[in-house]
Amino acid sequence: MNLSEFIEGNRDAHLAELCEFLRIPSVSAKSEHKPDIERAARWVADHLRAAGFQKIEIVQTNLHPLVYAESLDAPGKPTVLFYGHYDVQPAEPLDLWTSPAFEPSVRNGNLFGRGTADDKGQVHIHLKALESIQKVHGKLPINVKVLIEGEEEVGSVSLWDYVQKNKEKLKADALVVSDTSMLAKGVPSITYGLRGLNYYQIELTGPARDLHSGVYGGAVPNPLTILTELFAKLHDKNFKVTVPGFYDKVAKISAPERKALNSLPWKKKAFEEAVGAPGYAGEKGFTTVEQLWTRPTFELNGVWGGYQGEGAKTVIPAKAYAKFSTRLVPNQDPHRIAGLVEKHIRKLLPKTVRCKFQVLSTGKAWVAPYHAPIFKIAQGALEKGFGKKAVFIREGGSIPFVTQMHDTFKVPCVLIGFGLPDENAHAPDEHIALENYFGGIRAIAHLYTDLAAL
Amino acid sequence: MNLSEFIEGNRDAHLAELCEFLRIPSVSAKSEHKPDIERAARWVADHLRAAGFQKIEIVQTNLHPLVYAESLDAPGKPTVLFYGHYDVQPAEPLDLWTSPAFEPSVRNGNLFGRGTADDKGQVHIHLKALESIQKVHGKLPINVKVLIEGEEEVGSVSLWDYVQKNKEKLKADALVVSDTSMLAKGVPSITYGLRGLNYYQIELTGPARDLHSGVYGGAVPNPLTILTELFAKLHDKNFKVTVPGFYDKVAKISAPERKALNSLPWKKKAFEEAVGAPGYAGEKGFTTVEQLWTRPTFELNGVWGGYQGEGAKTVIPAKAYAKFSTRLVPNQDPHRIAGLVEKHIRKLLPKTVRCKFQVLSTGKAWVAPYHAPIFKIAQGALEKGFGKKAVFIREGGSIPFVTQMHDTFKVPCVLIGFGLPDENAHAPDEHIALENYFGGIRAIAHLYTDLAAL
Repeated sequence: MNLSEFIEGNRDAHLAELCEFLRIPSVSAKSEHKPDIERAARWVADHLRAAGFQKIEIVQTNLHPLVYAESLDAPGKPTVLFYGHYDVQPAEPLDLWTSPAFEPSVRNGNLFGRGTADDKGQVHIHLKALESIQKVHGKLPINVKVLIEGEEEVGSVSLWDYVQKNKEKLKADALVVSDTSMLAKGVPSITYGLRGLNYYQIELTGPARDLHSGVYGGAVPNPLTILTELFAKLHDKNFKVTVPGFYDKVAKISAPERKALNSLPWKKKAFEEAVGAPGYAGEKGFTTVEQLWTRPTFELNGVWGGYQGEGAKTVIPAKAYAKFSTRLVPNQDPHRIAGLVEKHIRKLLPKTVRCKFQVLSTGKAWVAPYHAPIFKIAQGALEKGFGKKAVFIREGGSIPFVTQMHDTFKVPCVLIGFGLPDENAHAPDEHIALENYFGGIRAIAHLYTDLAAL
Repeated sequence: MNLSEFIEGNRDAHLAELCEFLRIPSVSAKSEHKPDIERAARWVADHLRAAGFQKIEIVQTNLHPLVYAESLDAPGKPTVLFYGHYDVQPAEPLDLWTSPAFEPSVRNGNLFGRGTADDKGQVHIHLKALESIQKVHGKLPINVKVLIEGEEEVGSVSLWDYVQKNKEKLKADALVVSDTSMLAKGVPSITYGLRGLNYYQIELTGPARDLHSGVYGGAVPNPLTILTELFAKLHDKNFKVTVPGFYDKVAKISAPERKALNSLPWKKKAFEEAVGAPGYAGEKGFTTVEQLWTRPTFELNGVWGGYQGEGAKTVIPAKAYAKFSTRLVPNQDPHRIAGLVEKHIRKLLPKTVRCKFQVLSTGKAWVAPYHAPIFKIAQGALEKGFGKKAVFIREGGSIPFVTQMHDTFKVPCVLIGFGLPDENAHAPDEHIALENYFGGIRAIAHLYTDLAAL
């Protein structure tokens, strides 16, 4: 039996086993799920053993365990580090799920359940691809290291600590991650670029306490009004960010890359239907795809202050708050941008408020040279798995781990996602298309096989 | 024994009785206090009887009872309607009270407890003044109607319904209210003007659901940003409201009134110390007192949207909200202003958001001709009670009942407050200065006596 036949013959067994994995409510954000987290880590370790890995470790950390495994039986052949996570987002609001979050259910060719797309389903694709190769060929044709963490949804602190302390152990020729999406249904995709992310919070303080807006209104500066006046100044009428120096270092996209991105089978109409806004606007001079993947942004993520309850309260609040973020692109330096943003905001604010400015996190953008050989191999493997040519895409989001690993090991990172943009990762009714789950196992089995030629 | 001696001789008894009234936790906002509300209404009725009133009614309503009483034994003499309320604000947060909210306690010449200033203490001033006159003179020299409600802190709906249905019964030559503040300690004050209040809420909707700011940021209009851009346009650099027509009908203040207001014993430095802001700003061309009492405002009272929790969430929210209000002055028409505000806001908003605009309430300003005879009588009575000349002031807040009564009965309203601006009405450690409580009883006894000459 060849590899393809083996995989085809095990469809039902693979799907049943994935459902078993999905039934473990490994919600990393909630301490009540700590036993489930431990159970999920053991489940991953057990199934890595079934996949033929001999050296398997469950690494205890300050929070949730990591699972590490390695198969280094292919001397002289490339070594690949596969990264994924077994933890999931909370399932709430529970009443918005059509079928229970932790009771996987198939409807219309999709498997529904928390973790189907993000990321248990995609981790399972790799486990089953590796197991299939082992069962058909008796061994893996390359060296494989596997690192599956349990804190991705809560910040990956333990992972990063582990990587720093085990650089030699984790060394590889390439990093493979499946935690992203395909461009669209039927379009196998390789992601070669991510935006970076700085996240900020400010607190403006005017009066020492909340004031009655009748008694004091008209003679006391209102922090809420000042907040609105501040953020209204941060974009110009062409939707450019007004922070001086913000665009200084932004890498130019080459004409061929720009052409390639704009030629992708991506439909603006489908995008707008998915968003459902009454109208659209973005930075002038760039197409929507360019705005989303190649341009930096300044975005308000939360604003609050004063009275939010039912009815009326006539208050001038003492404080006003905002959370906001800048998405960054190559070659913006996150620390320099954070400094420019703070400087500009402090300059714009009047002396009638005090400002507490916090940088909650920084992270730079990542872009890979997608003409490197490993990308060609990945593209070929995807074509074998899906029967369609894979496209090279960028994404607007950020995966700090990819940037950190790339910076630490200076090796190519290949992001092959089997989710779809509308599969509700982080939301009720999360699902994965079964055609992408099964196609993923075929493609990834080809990938690990073909990487022997790297 | 004359009236003054009687009042002086009953200081301790009056104070003890007020404490009894204050111990009833008549919180109108909370249904668990319904029995206390009923008890407070009966307490008021009983003490009106003790004060010599024969006709007393506890009027059941859809919510909390009203207490009505009348003494019409002075044919040919003026009739005065006294209005107050026996309900109080909730006491929370309880841990910020130095002594328990419903266990009245004297410290440093102040009586602490919920309702001391707003409004039980002030209602009790009138009860004891009326009772003292009855006990000393055997009868009241004028006709008095008393209306004490139990819903002032929750909107006075039943009161207004009752007034509409009992116009003939409530008819009077003047309305007297004690539910305001003195300008400052040692400055007995008569309030002859209040600002009106329109309260609004808007909901802006952009995308059909919350979006990931990485995946969508840069090509989707952010309702929070649009909200800030909207409100940043509603004041110009001189702090004037930019709504076209907003100032069209604003009544000019006469030169003598302007001079009188600016000559009051009111200290800007004390005001700024009480507010505690890092800086001040208000409408150009007007003094602080003028800004607070005679100029209309446009004020944000609450803003919210997106993520407000700990840490970071990278969201472009579907919706952004604001609550805001306009304080109005004579002769702005509240309905016209509401229309102008809505028209302007809709004009300013881009087509990338939908806007739900709500007017939660409207209310016009009130100003009395303070040279009318009743104001002179009130000024004289206050001087007799406090040994100091009373001043005429306006306030920046709004008391809808006063405007409504004035419009319904077309009679003078005299607002004589015995609170102080820093006595924490609606906040923990609410208190009233004992000198103002006792001075109030003396002054109000003189007022009801001297009004016979009206």
